[in-house]
Amino acid sequence: MTEPLPLHRPGRSGPPLFSRIAIVGLGLIGGSVALAARRRWPDALVIGVDRKDIVERAMILHAIDVGADDLGMAAEADLIVLAAPVLEICRLLESGLSGMVAHEAVVTDVGSTKAAIVRAAAALPRHLHFVGGHPLAGAAVGGLEHARSDLFAGRPWWLCPDSTANLHRLDEFVEDLGATPKVVKAEAHDRLVAFLSHVPQLAASALMEIVGEAVGEEGLGLAGRGFQDTTRLASSPSDIWKDTCATNAAPIEEALDRLIARLQELRAGLNDPDLIERVFASAQQWKRKMPPRA
Amino acid sequence: MTEPLPLHRPGRSGPPLFSRIAIVGLGLIGGSVALAARRRWPDALVIGVDRKDIVERAMILHAIDVGADDLGMAAEADLIVLAAPVLEICRLLESGLSGMVAHEAVVTDVGSTKAAIVRAAAALPRHLHFVGGHPLAGAAVGGLEHARSDLFAGRPWWLCPDSTANLHRLDEFVEDLGATPKVVKAEAHDRLVAFLSHVPQLAASALMEIVGEAVGEEGLGLAGRGFQDTTRLASSPSDIWKDTCATNAAPIEEALDRLIARLQELRAGLNDPDLIERVFASAQQWKRKMPPRA
Repeated sequence: MTEPLPLHRPGRSGPPLFSRIAIVGLGLIGGSVALAARRRWPDALVIGVDRKDIVERAMILHAIDVGADDLGMAAEADLIVLAAPVLEICRLLESGLSGMVAHEAVVTDVGSTKAAIVRAAAALPRHLHFVGGHPLAGAAVGGLEHARSDLFAGRPWWLCPDSTANLHRLDEFVEDLGATPKVVKAEAHDRLVAFLSHVPQLAASALMEIVGEAVGEEGLGLAGRGFQDTTRLASSPSDIWKDTCATNAAPIEEALDRLIARLQELRAGLNDPDLIERVFASAQQWKRKMPPRA
Repeated sequence: MTEPLPLHRPGRSGPPLFSRIAIVGLGLIGGSVALAARRRWPDALVIGVDRKDIVERAMILHAIDVGADDLGMAAEADLIVLAAPVLEICRLLESGLSGMVAHEAVVTDVGSTKAAIVRAAAALPRHLHFVGGHPLAGAAVGGLEHARSDLFAGRPWWLCPDSTANLHRLDEFVEDLGATPKVVKAEAHDRLVAFLSHVPQLAASALMEIVGEAVGEEGLGLAGRGFQDTTRLASSPSDIWKDTCATNAAPIEEALDRLIARLQELRAGLNDPDLIERVFASAQQWKRKMPPRA
């Protein structure tokens, strides 16, 4: 995570990929895109759209060149990055970005589910070219104050293009921000994150809640490191998760069904050493196949 | 975990609490009890019982003074610590320690469930006084080679006495090994560890298995830190867990039922922002009540 941004990439120079980059939503991800873009392309204009107080803080942090609480600020952009919560991104796309952008532009997003967003993007007028995106970067805490220009360094960044027409420009854009672009279909993306991210989150929160209710604060005081790690995600705030669950319900349901079925099997077989052996051995094998924790 | 053992406790000196301490089973916990006892009471005789090759390694590590693969080694002990897997501890107790120990002695154990063990201890002859025990210490990996004399420093050590008759001696013993003794009824102990340890373990293993099966090794390569932490326990070997599940089935069933019910509720309510908000907020509140990770 600390490797330097490739500011002077060999064999690629000249004007910025986009000359006017509008970022709608200046939280952890939007703010980090802004900081990374300003660092990578000092000649490009980075435009921020968010609440007035957040735009003001983004100016103080030198994350944006100009900004306002009005989508009209994005009217002249040739790249528009939607970095709001998923349902807000859907609303913006369904409104055709409110007819604000009259000329050709590329539109992307950083939402954590993709199928609902790609569907919503079908409402965009023809001169706005959509490529869905999802950087797999994050931090324990959100918000502009935690934004960093190197947040995406070495991290995967999913791209879900409608067509390949504008893919190469987005591909170059995220690579220049330090990320590793990976092209995937929206449905495959959503199933993958349901298993790797959404259901682990729900399981951690559910576990933390039922254990807290059962043993109380005094009991929790006796928890060891294993329980601490298993429930680390339970400190996540709910705000982005409401939209994530709502827009990725079907894949999350599939993953939850599998987890519930396996837990029911274990519940029925606690006295069956072969079952316990099989589940532990298989889990251990999968765990060994994972790359060591960064 | 690194605080020094209280080798020279003020106000307590004189002869060791027990002069001949037999430890049956020289794994991580038994080996650490041996190392800690030898360090705390250099004048006591520490006797090891395990397979020949393990006894040999324990001698090389200076964990024990004498040892053999024969329970007869424990015949002269005034404290017998059973540090085998739970079902093996039950078998040893049910056999009345095979009539090996003819004189008065205190018998304790370090098994991770207590009700089954306390029931089995009812078979002991009257001159053997049982106090169940469970040190809440462990490491990512087991085995004698990971034993440490400071493994119990600052950690809770549950004691489940039949009567209070011999409790004070065990209490002093574990305190002198650096642990914090906590007296609890066997049933309360087992319910607590079902929630704090056994079900988190089963959930981590089940999650790891269903995710590995669904996304494969390539998909796992994209997992982030959240997934890594949530499934850290999935690397646990199954050996101690078969006995743990079998001897603590009822409390684990209760805890699994609650977890499954909460997951089913979430599955049915992914489109219900109020439900998501409520579960996340409650999980977050419980998480905040936990002491920070050591």
